[in-house]
Amino acid sequence: MLYLVTYDITNNRLRTKIAKTLIKNGLERIQYSVFMGDLTDTYKDLILEKINLLVNDAVEYSVLFIPLHKDMLFDITEISEQNLDWEYIKGEKICMMF
Amino acid sequence: MLYLVTYDITNNRLRTKIAKTLIKNGLERIQYSVFMGDLTDTYKDLILEKINLLVNDAVEYSVLFIPLHKDMLFDITEISEQNLDWEYIKGEKICMMF
Repeated sequence: MLYLVTYDITNNRLRTKIAKTLIKNGLERIQYSVFMGDLTDTYKDLILEKINLLVNDAVEYSVLFIPLHKDMLFDITEISEQNLDWEYIKGEKICMMF
Repeated sequence: MLYLVTYDITNNRLRTKIAKTLIKNGLERIQYSVFMGDLTDTYKDLILEKINLLVNDAVEYSVLFIPLHKDMLFDITEISEQNLDWEYIKGEKICMMF
């Protein structure tokens, strides 16, 4: 299943650790606090377990894993200076375009 | 259609203006840079038009409108200190629980 992961984390150190955990586990950073990637249930549970360990005793944090239908990626509207490489994000090609 | 709106905007003034535009037009802020709401196509186009006017001449901005299936809201995983009131966000009740 394709997931969008968004977070709101006040503590810089915790935020960096969670970002690294998401990236190491195959998610693409599409905005500063937004990530996207295709995850199996097992892999998602593994990442959730790691995040739950990291936020233990932390305050002011919110992490959301939002499931997306792949079909809906075609209907994303992007307003930005440089558009994201959606084919790469969807896993349809290996190399990102620059 | 239900939309998740996420942004990455360096300029504080522009970020505040876009946040206000989203909230004034009925979107709920669910994280600092993440909003959610049910929008008709006409209303979405109107908001996009307003944002396009605001980002004119701006630099370092990215705004994404991501369509979501309402059914998928049931599968959102939330790791946070205080869970969001999803019934309110989905428009299933008028008052938010505190």
